[in-house]
Amino acid sequence: MPEASPLVAILMGSDSDLPTMAECARVLEDYRVPYDIRVLSAHRSPAEAATYARDAALRGLRVIIAGAGGAAHLAGAMAAYTTLPVIGVPLDSSPLGGFDALLATVQMPPGVPVATVAIGRGGAENAAILAAQMLSLKSRALRQRLERFKAELAQSVEGKNIRLQRKLFPDLAE
Amino acid sequence: MPEASPLVAILMGSDSDLPTMAECARVLEDYRVPYDIRVLSAHRSPAEAATYARDAALRGLRVIIAGAGGAAHLAGAMAAYTTLPVIGVPLDSSPLGGFDALLATVQMPPGVPVATVAIGRGGAENAAILAAQMLSLKSRALRQRLERFKAELAQSVEGKNIRLQRKLFPDLAE
Amino acid sequence: MPEASPLVAILMGSDSDLPTMAECARVLEDYRVPYDIRVLSAHRSPAEAATYARDAALRGLRVIIAGAGGAAHLAGAMAAYTTLPVIGVPLDSSPLGGFDALLATVQMPPGVPVATVAIGRGGAENAAILAAQMLSLKSRALRQRLERFKAELAQSVEGKNIRLQRKLFPDLAE
Amino acid sequence: MPEASPLVAILMGSDSDLPTMAECARVLEDYRVPYDIRVLSAHRSPAEAATYARDAALRGLRVIIAGAGGAAHLAGAMAAYTTLPVIGVPLDSSPLGGFDALLATVQMPPGVPVATVAIGRGGAENAAILAAQMLSLKSRALRQRLERFKAELAQSVEGKNIRLQRKLFPDLAE
Amino acid sequence: MPEASPLVAILMGSDSDLPTMAECARVLEDYRVPYDIRVLSAHRSPAEAATYARDAALRGLRVIIAGAGGAAHLAGAMAAYTTLPVIGVPLDSSPLGGFDALLATVQMPPGVPVATVAIGRGGAENAAILAAQMLSLKSRALRQRLERFKAELAQSVEGKNIRLQRKLFPDLAE
Amino acid sequence: MPEASPLVAILMGSDSDLPTMAECARVLEDYRVPYDIRVLSAHRSPAEAATYARDAALRGLRVIIAGAGGAAHLAGAMAAYTTLPVIGVPLDSSPLGGFDALLATVQMPPGVPVATVAIGRGGAENAAILAAQMLSLKSRALRQRLERFKAELAQSVEGKNIRLQRKLFPDLAE
Amino acid sequence: MPEASPLVAILMGSDSDLPTMAECARVLEDYRVPYDIRVLSAHRSPAEAATYARDAALRGLRVIIAGAGGAAHLAGAMAAYTTLPVIGVPLDSSPLGGFDALLATVQMPPGVPVATVAIGRGGAENAAILAAQMLSLKSRALRQRLERFKAELAQSVEGKNIRLQRKLFPDLAE
Amino acid sequence: MPEASPLVAILMGSDSDLPTMAECARVLEDYRVPYDIRVLSAHRSPAEAATYARDAALRGLRVIIAGAGGAAHLAGAMAAYTTLPVIGVPLDSSPLGGFDALLATVQMPPGVPVATVAIGRGGAENAAILAAQMLSLKSRALRQRLERFKAELAQSVEGKNIRLQRKLFPDLAE
Repeated sequence: MPEASPLVAILMGSDSDLPTMAECARVLEDYRVPYDIRVLSAHRSPAEAATYARDAALRGLRVIIAGAGGAAHLAGAMAAYTTLPVIGVPLDSSPLGGFDALLATVQMPPGVPVATVAIGRGGAENAAILAAQMLSLKSRALRQRLERFKAELAQSVEGKNIRLQRKLFPDLAE
Repeated sequence: MPEASPLVAILMGSDSDLPTMAECARVLEDYRVPYDIRVLSAHRSPAEAATYARDAALRGLRVIIAGAGGAAHLAGAMAAYTTLPVIGVPLDSSPLGGFDALLATVQMPPGVPVATVAIGRGGAENAAILAAQMLSLKSRALRQRLERFKAELAQSVEGKNIRLQRKLFPDLAE
Repeated sequence: MPEASPLVAILMGSDSDLPTMAECARVLEDYRVPYDIRVLSAHRSPAEAATYARDAALRGLRVIIAGAGGAAHLAGAMAAYTTLPVIGVPLDSSPLGGFDALLATVQMPPGVPVATVAIGRGGAENAAILAAQMLSLKSRALRQRLERFKAELAQSVEGKNIRLQRKLFPDLAE
Repeated sequence: MPEASPLVAILMGSDSDLPTMAECARVLEDYRVPYDIRVLSAHRSPAEAATYARDAALRGLRVIIAGAGGAAHLAGAMAAYTTLPVIGVPLDSSPLGGFDALLATVQMPPGVPVATVAIGRGGAENAAILAAQMLSLKSRALRQRLERFKAELAQSVEGKNIRLQRKLFPDLAE
Repeated sequence: MPEASPLVAILMGSDSDLPTMAECARVLEDYRVPYDIRVLSAHRSPAEAATYARDAALRGLRVIIAGAGGAAHLAGAMAAYTTLPVIGVPLDSSPLGGFDALLATVQMPPGVPVATVAIGRGGAENAAILAAQMLSLKSRALRQRLERFKAELAQSVEGKNIRLQRKLFPDLAE
Repeated sequence: MPEASPLVAILMGSDSDLPTMAECARVLEDYRVPYDIRVLSAHRSPAEAATYARDAALRGLRVIIAGAGGAAHLAGAMAAYTTLPVIGVPLDSSPLGGFDALLATVQMPPGVPVATVAIGRGGAENAAILAAQMLSLKSRALRQRLERFKAELAQSVEGKNIRLQRKLFPDLAE
Repeated sequence: MPEASPLVAILMGSDSDLPTMAECARVLEDYRVPYDIRVLSAHRSPAEAATYARDAALRGLRVIIAGAGGAAHLAGAMAAYTTLPVIGVPLDSSPLGGFDALLATVQMPPGVPVATVAIGRGGAENAAILAAQMLSLKSRALRQRLERFKAELAQSVEGKNIRLQRKLFPDLAE
Repeated sequence: MPEASPLVAILMGSDSDLPTMAECARVLEDYRVPYDIRVLSAHRSPAEAATYARDAALRGLRVIIAGAGGAAHLAGAMAAYTTLPVIGVPLDSSPLGGFDALLATVQMPPGVPVATVAIGRGGAENAAILAAQMLSLKSRALRQRLERFKAELAQSVEGKNIRLQRKLFPDLAE
């Protein structure tokens, strides 16, 4: 996947965030969206982060996903330097349960939005879906994949329900 | 503006939310993005809300912005029925300072993202910018307006700084 | 129990919520209240959820219990479509300890109440008791069972106390 | 209204809570549900509160609504003494925005549920609707009123929407 | 110890709270203060709790310590029925980390104080010391024990410091 | 009142806290308990605060009440230096609604309790009542006043109730 | 003051923060510490902010104070680019009472500290004192001013106390 | 290291805090800054703590780091007695996740600042770096070490990134 010219960047402040942020990669592969994934820190490698954000559009990137914990500034730092849409994933890596990361990501000042998703792994998955939704504005194929995924989502709920019924009431099952 | 086929929906749970959500309209007009604006409630008019979400893509809408307070479900209800990107604006309309609306908007389950922005008026402004960023993925004109806006943003900070210097140190000013 | 025409619905957003929501079923069986239990999601299967809520009263259901975590909308989505009383159980399934689910469940707008109980397993048990209390408004048998349960509750506290005394002061026991 | 034998009790810890709790009375009058309304405190007049709760069912009451702020125990104290359903309204009367009252009302132990609604005035209105929903389990007339109210709720949203359109786009209005 | 006429009551809502509340007993034994310890619930055995509080002073009790979690009402229920000083220990027994118990214990209305200590085991220990401090107002012996304990407290800190030095810098130790 | 040898100290970190802490003085005068009231700061006049705490018992003081906001350390600083019971009143003097003062007052380490009451004015009133309850352990007269106050408290609730009935249902009043 | 080569930078994200951040200037003038004060935004003028931070040490600045609200990144952005000590002042400019700004400022990742002070005006004053304390490590004159200020602080508390006594007990005053 | 005349004090309320606070020592050793490390409690050994703070400057100490949990007063107690800069490390040692310690440390009143860093181990590391930054105001050697550390920090991020690429895309590696 990474050979193709990447459309989405998946950034994380530390390699310890990989187990969570790998969800983004998994989902983008499902949607066949090429991506760039890397460690980059708003606080520890700020010049590299700024350069990455500035060059992103020129390199063909269309959406940036950034996951960070604590005083999570990575998504905001990206949004400061680019007009590409930036998605922030607050990570649960401090004793405050990701609550600090959520507020540091979502409460951006007027003029510089960050599209914030839920804390942790579910948020990482949703960040990738949201990126695909944005990209689908100019890709019919992606729209169709999103529609199919949405239909499967409802079916998977019904599938879980059927298994629940069988588990609770085995006598009723054929 | 509303005569043109709208690309962005601005939805709010109550007309009392208009002073805040009108920021979205103002910004979209600046960006010359046609929009639809209306009152719609996930809890009080759920069938209408579901129909709106289901038909949105067919009607040509490309992004949905939904503002709500308290147990803010409007954005999530939209996202449940459409694969268009949905932006949620948590509103500060309960004694908890919008904290309830923030959590009810951002903590969506895997599979159904809502792009959440800051609480209140600044969030409403940012929701519109974020929508413009998404639409700019297929509009060069919009990308240019976003770039210009970003440049002006930095200039306005410097302008504020100059006024601050004059105010504090009038003797130094020429 | 599920063969009888169910009076109470026990709904959960995911089958992973079953260990908690099974408390509802256990208590309703104690009270001999027939129930329907199923997986249904306000966000992943919204049309099915809406249909379930709309048809609930006609199918003979009298109370709906809905458990969900995070941006917990299931109870609110039910309440949007039915005038049956809806009980919401906030589940502790995010890093925020159920705090998000509590606010997303309880802070409903005027006109659409959700009867919210405590976070997690104790809340699930209480949801079933609350449902039985509501149903007891037209069932003398159920009222008597509730009275008996309340008397036993006080006795069980005294029983625990007696065991505590024996454990701490074995010499005083006969 | 209070002459009829009351079916619902509206209790508040202090007369300063009346402006909020009067919402309950207003709604119950709309639904033509007779009610008893009074000041009663779990902490300042506990014996009277206990007696009220113990006698409630015998006096013909069917639902108890209790509003309190701070370490809000009134609803829980009622639930401790009766098997009638008890609805708790957390009031915003401390510097913590009703957050303390919410937790003190909703986090009841297993065995003793309190049906908790939103903080403040909206919650008070919803408490009365929830009481009416419970009572409607044995009153067809009440069920019809609730259905009518639900339909009007959706219409009022659409009415607000129409006024919003007229206000924003007066040229388009006929 | 319990044979002597108890001066302090140690109450807990459930026997599962014993590991925490046993700290109270341990400390009171150190101070040679006779105590009564028992399970009693404001919500599950409210009549027994009320009777206990009402009779406490007559039975010779001088201070009441009550530990409870969640919507922790036990201390407040005691304080409602007695003018003896009541100490509340918020317990960490819900997913909210004792935060609910803290607010439900401390935010008492004017007229009915509860002396609240820290959440959990440290709070239980401190509740007993606080009870001893109150009782020392009329016991010189107890005052002396408290003074001795305070002196030992400072010494134990210095002792810990000396061990720290030895551990970190073994070469410097003689 | 202050001429008599004071039994209770009322301390506050700043004279801006007087409107709140004056409640303590008012209540103690009602109970005819002589008090000392003064401004003293754990952070701005720490040596004076330490001296005050160390000398308090010798000067005849029996209970110390300390009110402070923000990182509220005054009560804890008193408790560090004396074995007299110390009551802490968290004040609402920061943008966090007294939440910071509450945690800084109540979460004391094992060995050094502070009896914490509610945030703000109600807490100040309760601090004085709690002090009177402690002192009543050796004063029959004070016990009687406390009993009378408790009886009046219940009567005042009933009085408020009667006025409520008259206000809401003037036709029913004789 | 600003003519002298500035030692301390006072930065704020917006000119609306001036009423709060002017406290820094006032205090530094008291201490006769030359300062630079300006509007600079981590999100709206990130390149200028980065340049300012990178050049700060070379320009002779020794301490940087940065005040910001919401997702407050200004202090962290400074700390990312300089090894000068950076002091962050969380501002109360969102509906969350500065709570978001506090967490976004203080929860910095290992390697990049921000010295965080209290929310709002008191924090701004303390930021300047803290800067003076740091600078005093190489300025005897500044150390003496700090010692004098500390002595005056204790005296001002005693002064407030004397005025309190006069106000409450005018008869006792001479 | 401790033989040299210490410039930085590392204080902790309990020896159980050593695993966290040892980070300070490790970092200061890296920077070759001599330190004093000890157990000292604002609440359990207040006189010793006051003496330590009062004598610190005379003994040659230049910065004080204090770590404490719960109602964390140690840093504030130091700051009350010295004009040396004091750094507070909130520790996560209560059920509230260090949230109590954070507020008790950071929300200091005007006049008495505490430079607060992040909760827990990362905060302890940052406290030492911050101390080194302060000391570097008069040490060119220390400034150079800080610059080197900052450069290595950015390199270590890039190193993590390279390892991430190799792990995810082993085929692309040479």
